[in-house]
Amino acid sequence: MHRITWWRRLLAEFLGTALLVTAVVGSGIMAVELSPNDVGLQLLENSVATAFALGALILMFGPVSGAHFNPVVSAADWFLSRRTGTGLTVKGLIGYAAAQTTGAITGSILANLMFGLAPVTFSAKDRAAGHLWLGEVVAVAGLLLLIFALGRSGRAAVAPAAVGAYIGAAYWFTSSTSFANPAVTIGRAFTDTFAGIAPASVPGFVIAQLAGLIIGAGLVLALYPTARPILQGSSS
Amino acid sequence: MHRITWWRRLLAEFLGTALLVTAVVGSGIMAVELSPNDVGLQLLENSVATAFALGALILMFGPVSGAHFNPVVSAADWFLSRRTGTGLTVKGLIGYAAAQTTGAITGSILANLMFGLAPVTFSAKDRAAGHLWLGEVVAVAGLLLLIFALGRSGRAAVAPAAVGAYIGAAYWFTSSTSFANPAVTIGRAFTDTFAGIAPASVPGFVIAQLAGLIIGAGLVLALYPTARPILQGSSS
Amino acid sequence: MHRITWWRRLLAEFLGTALLVTAVVGSGIMAVELSPNDVGLQLLENSVATAFALGALILMFGPVSGAHFNPVVSAADWFLSRRTGTGLTVKGLIGYAAAQTTGAITGSILANLMFGLAPVTFSAKDRAAGHLWLGEVVAVAGLLLLIFALGRSGRAAVAPAAVGAYIGAAYWFTSSTSFANPAVTIGRAFTDTFAGIAPASVPGFVIAQLAGLIIGAGLVLALYPTARPILQGSSS
Amino acid sequence: MHRITWWRRLLAEFLGTALLVTAVVGSGIMAVELSPNDVGLQLLENSVATAFALGALILMFGPVSGAHFNPVVSAADWFLSRRTGTGLTVKGLIGYAAAQTTGAITGSILANLMFGLAPVTFSAKDRAAGHLWLGEVVAVAGLLLLIFALGRSGRAAVAPAAVGAYIGAAYWFTSSTSFANPAVTIGRAFTDTFAGIAPASVPGFVIAQLAGLIIGAGLVLALYPTARPILQGSSS
Repeated sequence: MHRITWWRRLLAEFLGTALLVTAVVGSGIMAVELSPNDVGLQLLENSVATAFALGALILMFGPVSGAHFNPVVSAADWFLSRRTGTGLTVKGLIGYAAAQTTGAITGSILANLMFGLAPVTFSAKDRAAGHLWLGEVVAVAGLLLLIFALGRSGRAAVAPAAVGAYIGAAYWFTSSTSFANPAVTIGRAFTDTFAGIAPASVPGFVIAQLAGLIIGAGLVLALYPTARPILQGSSS
Repeated sequence: MHRITWWRRLLAEFLGTALLVTAVVGSGIMAVELSPNDVGLQLLENSVATAFALGALILMFGPVSGAHFNPVVSAADWFLSRRTGTGLTVKGLIGYAAAQTTGAITGSILANLMFGLAPVTFSAKDRAAGHLWLGEVVAVAGLLLLIFALGRSGRAAVAPAAVGAYIGAAYWFTSSTSFANPAVTIGRAFTDTFAGIAPASVPGFVIAQLAGLIIGAGLVLALYPTARPILQGSSS
Repeated sequence: MHRITWWRRLLAEFLGTALLVTAVVGSGIMAVELSPNDVGLQLLENSVATAFALGALILMFGPVSGAHFNPVVSAADWFLSRRTGTGLTVKGLIGYAAAQTTGAITGSILANLMFGLAPVTFSAKDRAAGHLWLGEVVAVAGLLLLIFALGRSGRAAVAPAAVGAYIGAAYWFTSSTSFANPAVTIGRAFTDTFAGIAPASVPGFVIAQLAGLIIGAGLVLALYPTARPILQGSSS
Repeated sequence: MHRITWWRRLLAEFLGTALLVTAVVGSGIMAVELSPNDVGLQLLENSVATAFALGALILMFGPVSGAHFNPVVSAADWFLSRRTGTGLTVKGLIGYAAAQTTGAITGSILANLMFGLAPVTFSAKDRAAGHLWLGEVVAVAGLLLLIFALGRSGRAAVAPAAVGAYIGAAYWFTSSTSFANPAVTIGRAFTDTFAGIAPASVPGFVIAQLAGLIIGAGLVLALYPTARPILQGSSS
């Protein structure tokens, strides 16, 4: 079997992350425009649209690049498979992260243009507070545990629906509305709309996400120490 | 194996597109009637109903006709398989598009009648603007990439849920609320309700959808150049 | 292989229909209590709860009785398989319909009790109008086509999610909010709450549902003439 | 096959129940904060987030511990498999229940912290009434029947989505909003927010849940008397 061409994988990560940010930012703009009187309703609209879009995007790009769309997922993929050689190399990780980050910024611009706004306006929404950072730690740790639990138990086929559902829920149960993705966080700084984040708040979120990466990878190793654990029978 | 009779396939495309437009238009009428004070809530109701209905309709008619319900999907099917002879012929494409378009108009009329309105009232809702057309380009390109990514990687069984989810999300993240379908666009001109579109705005939407068809088909060829790509192992 | 005991099948139909009506009526009561100011929001809450509950209930009882919960489904099962002998007999149909109807009434009573209301209060909600009956015809015909399309193409495993999604959508796109079930219609007469129907409106709904049964069975025979149609390849 | 280490299973039950309560409590806090004017909208947001999170959490921890997260599920697992020796032992049940209960309390504290509240404030929300207890009986009996119907008919793979959907619906159709879990009930006493329950109301809920356990286990034995029932053919 020949490998999928490298540029094709980078293109998939670029496009997938772009469309993910377009979905997040675009549905946020639409929600504020149409439901101006209830922020909760806005987040409900935004979260359902994001969950559905994310599931579809993972299906769209998964067979080409793995559909990471997220540097912490790519980093965990490198880390957790660095000995077996089945995952990304360090060079691959850098390529993926670059494609994801430029994709995320492009996605923000596309959303702005689709809604008749200036291509780029930096967000003024301050999101810097300890309890928000704790939210990001929880969001990332849970996301990684979900993805690698599925991958390490032969259930990757349900990842699109599962990851979509997880993020849709985490919009609500984490105080930070679960950015959970450094590339997407950077991209969301480029729009002064519902889903935006002030550039000054980006580093705090990214650091919290890296903390979540460490905890999440640790939980994967604790609960799923081998790539294919011995499954239990029945429900016991 | 004998082929499924041709009239049966056209009947499936006619009925499926009709019920799709009935679902879109009918749920829009209901939403405005019951939630008069929040347009966002109306779109939430409309989009969830459409996503659920579309998934069910693809299951209902898929084994008979492929459940395209959409001339750009049929055109892409013809184009992408014109050398292997596994898809629609030009003649088949014309038949499908005719069945879809008459079905869409019928569906609008059925929705009007079910809600006690005159069978036909042309929509007065102007939907002509550059940023809306950009929305349609994005919506169609993404839809085609999703459908053919699934078809070309042996995952067509998840298409009903995936396409439903994609359209449900695209209602929110595209500025045009994602018509993404020339037949449905024409059909929606026949109702002066929530989901309607002024006849004068139809050509602009259809042209944008054709641009999306070109981009979408190009992305399919770039990312899934053969009908059955070599799949990567694991999540890397 | 020995058959599943007959009383066990009747118990499954009784309990399943009871819990379905409990879910429909109960979530309607909760919705009105908690969202008094927007009828659309009430229906959104009611429809999402019904879709989720129906999917779970079909999974719960399907292997025992087929999880019809609906006399028109049982009647179509008898009619469409009367020559192959793989479905219900006439006697079986009568037993199923009786279990479903008594179950539906029981479910209404249980919902009333769970919300601290009198066990039975007949509904005062008039639902008699030609366009509502048209809604019921469409709702039933589509439901039957969905169920037997899945059954006749070897995809019964997705029926729980598909039927839940279909009914969740049909609450919105049919003018009648898609009762689509004579037993449930009778059961819903026993509660004077959101989901209720005045006893005098029941016969009209049931007659419309029987018309939908005839149309739906006809569509099944037209599109899926044999129990296992020759499937087409790919998406063409 | 060697068994999954015991501490790993307890860790999975602890973490899974913690994250479940974090999702329930956290999304409740967010919902009240963002949608202050409609309690129904709050419950809609809370229930959708819970359904999505629960499905993801069962996927996350299922292969390790069975993803019970609930003492009545663990008790039913012990009871229903006590003769075949395929389920939990009494000692295992005690360990699971302890991990679940401490996890639930931890989850409440984590949610409080993530939203910038004091780690623990006991709830003042009185939930003591006969019709609420009836709601808990129904909620638990249905939950157990669903889980063991799936397990005893070889369909455990759909349990994550099915259990998520069931609980999402039961939030609406039971008067008690379906706690359905003694450990989670105790955990929810530790937060004075939307999802809280006054400590004095906990015993009544737990007793009702134990009644639901008895009824649910009885229904499992009546409808699925053996671990792998003879399945019927087709839909009859």
